[in-house]
Amino acid sequence: MPAELHPRTKITTESIFSRMSRLALQHGAINLGQGFPSNPPPAFLLEAARKAVGTVDQYTPPFGLPSLREALAEDLGVSPEDIVVTAGATEALSSLADSLYGVGDEVVMLEPYFDAYLPQTLMVGARPVLVPMRLTDRWELDLEALERAITPRSRALLVNSPYNPTGSIFSREELEAIVTLAREHDLWIISDEVYDELYFEAPPTPLRALAPERVFTVGSAGKRLEATGWRIGWIVTPPGLAPAVTGMRQWSSFCSAAPLQAAVAQALPIARAEGFYPQLRESYRQRKDLLAQGLQAMGLEVFEPVGTYFLTARMPGLSAETLVQQARVAIIPGSAFYASSPPPEGLVRFAFCKTPEDIAQALERLERFLKIRG
Amino acid sequence: MPAELHPRTKITTESIFSRMSRLALQHGAINLGQGFPSNPPPAFLLEAARKAVGTVDQYTPPFGLPSLREALAEDLGVSPEDIVVTAGATEALSSLADSLYGVGDEVVMLEPYFDAYLPQTLMVGARPVLVPMRLTDRWELDLEALERAITPRSRALLVNSPYNPTGSIFSREELEAIVTLAREHDLWIISDEVYDELYFEAPPTPLRALAPERVFTVGSAGKRLEATGWRIGWIVTPPGLAPAVTGMRQWSSFCSAAPLQAAVAQALPIARAEGFYPQLRESYRQRKDLLAQGLQAMGLEVFEPVGTYFLTARMPGLSAETLVQQARVAIIPGSAFYASSPPPEGLVRFAFCKTPEDIAQALERLERFLKIRG
Repeated sequence: MPAELHPRTKITTESIFSRMSRLALQHGAINLGQGFPSNPPPAFLLEAARKAVGTVDQYTPPFGLPSLREALAEDLGVSPEDIVVTAGATEALSSLADSLYGVGDEVVMLEPYFDAYLPQTLMVGARPVLVPMRLTDRWELDLEALERAITPRSRALLVNSPYNPTGSIFSREELEAIVTLAREHDLWIISDEVYDELYFEAPPTPLRALAPERVFTVGSAGKRLEATGWRIGWIVTPPGLAPAVTGMRQWSSFCSAAPLQAAVAQALPIARAEGFYPQLRESYRQRKDLLAQGLQAMGLEVFEPVGTYFLTARMPGLSAETLVQQARVAIIPGSAFYASSPPPEGLVRFAFCKTPEDIAQALERLERFLKIRG
Repeated sequence: MPAELHPRTKITTESIFSRMSRLALQHGAINLGQGFPSNPPPAFLLEAARKAVGTVDQYTPPFGLPSLREALAEDLGVSPEDIVVTAGATEALSSLADSLYGVGDEVVMLEPYFDAYLPQTLMVGARPVLVPMRLTDRWELDLEALERAITPRSRALLVNSPYNPTGSIFSREELEAIVTLAREHDLWIISDEVYDELYFEAPPTPLRALAPERVFTVGSAGKRLEATGWRIGWIVTPPGLAPAVTGMRQWSSFCSAAPLQAAVAQALPIARAEGFYPQLRESYRQRKDLLAQGLQAMGLEVFEPVGTYFLTARMPGLSAETLVQQARVAIIPGSAFYASSPPPEGLVRFAFCKTPEDIAQALERLERFLKIRG
């Protein structure tokens, strides 16, 4: 073996999501861990992809297939010039890390955090500064703590709403307070809105509407159209900044999968016209209620989500490893979302983007396991 | 406008390849610039993709769909455990940059270089050290210059064979000399072999066969199967290093497009069994001969390629801008491949992955243009 790998490779190993999925397979567990939907993508999307294959197969421009930028612009009410198509939201976030910060910079984000945020910040040499959410009988933003976390080294605020894993959505007042902080301290805002169509009460406010000059919005066709493996995401940039972000994105994967870009371009207006998103929400609402009520019936404390397809609850005294091995239900332990402070006692995350049958069976298995355990 | 973007964004803007393609469209030029094939992908690949869409649509593991790792392992004669599937060869190269070097490190590479190498090296904070090839009546590796370029800060050698843009292939002796240098100086080798099936004389030697302990091989389904927009590439790592490389790759785009991974897994053994690659080579040989003979007939000096779908020639006194505007033929200027030294006088690169009709028409246009110009 010659020279060592770069120390950067020590930042990260297998993600807890991949690991729990692997353990789920190994133990024949029902996988309520990793957030991939059990539903297939809608027929109109699949049909569009089957037609695009064989016609749109070569490189697209790094900023995206023109027809997809147009369709996104129409759907989101922005200019096509301000859109950068990416290989999923993961690449959207990593291209923004490349574009916005480096050594000596701090990025303020909330805890619990989505797992990509930390390694992506560290990989470009910047420092993540985590601000814990308050957990009472619900998840609450601690605005004072957020303000205290900002220093002269701060470059950006990273927020996620609808919020994975909490399932919460920031109110317009909270978003306005975040924007006020960002303006006072001259910070960029990265707004991870991949669950923008997954809400159960009022629709979330797009953060860019409040501060178009500083908000980069991250979106995902995988989440909206139940095709997480297609890797079609996007960034909406402040006016004029798409070329610089594209300059970074072109050297990570050059462009997104061409026929799948073409298919998403076709599907976006159909999804709107055919009322696909309201159906999606209704389908998730039923599964959320099934899971929440089932867990509550076992006496667990549940923090009922108003968005995303995740639900947090407390299951004190149980490890995720024990659950996957003995109850044969895979979930994600709260510790996966915490790095600067201990997670709330017994916190776990369930994904309910699974079939009602799987959710019902997982509930049965959990109930049986908890009874035996006493 | 708040805080500036990170200075990293100044490293790169629109690539010359994207720019020439844009100019080609604008001027109605025949595009012999960017290397995307005019052929559609083979029918067996398209059919496999149409079947995979609707069945393999969610996240795959970041190291790749197991069936694709198996198919690649079989095709390349390596272990599936040593394969990391990536979003095209571009992401393979950027994940290796993330895995292998950073601030204070030097990466030795040859000039002319493929355009991604420089920004990808700079983006992780490392320094590219360029060693010019010698151009006599053919492209020659300058081994002494290569050795002189190595310093205690050198971390890796980056080589490309079959070589874009030169169209040359390193001999076994040259590869052995490169390996000897790497062993003496304890360097990693990144071997960009995306054109591994595109050769016109003897097949290229895979560099990993000579130094499995230190060679990372980069490969591309897009180049092999004429689907450059599908973004399915791969890395073959030295034994035991795939998990660390996957750790980096998972935070750039998480995984490659799932249905297209499944399709490539299906197609690789069919391509072998049905003799697809010999047909591909024959088809390219004809187009290479057409282009080379046409250019020679105009009196141009042509450096005839033995691999890739690129051909270099000298057209002194003409800019690529003049050619695309006035002759309406887009090519890539030699300067696109040089940063540390001036390109050889009048060097240009032609892509011949285009239809014979387009190549013939481009030749006619060039001949007419050169005659008028006198």
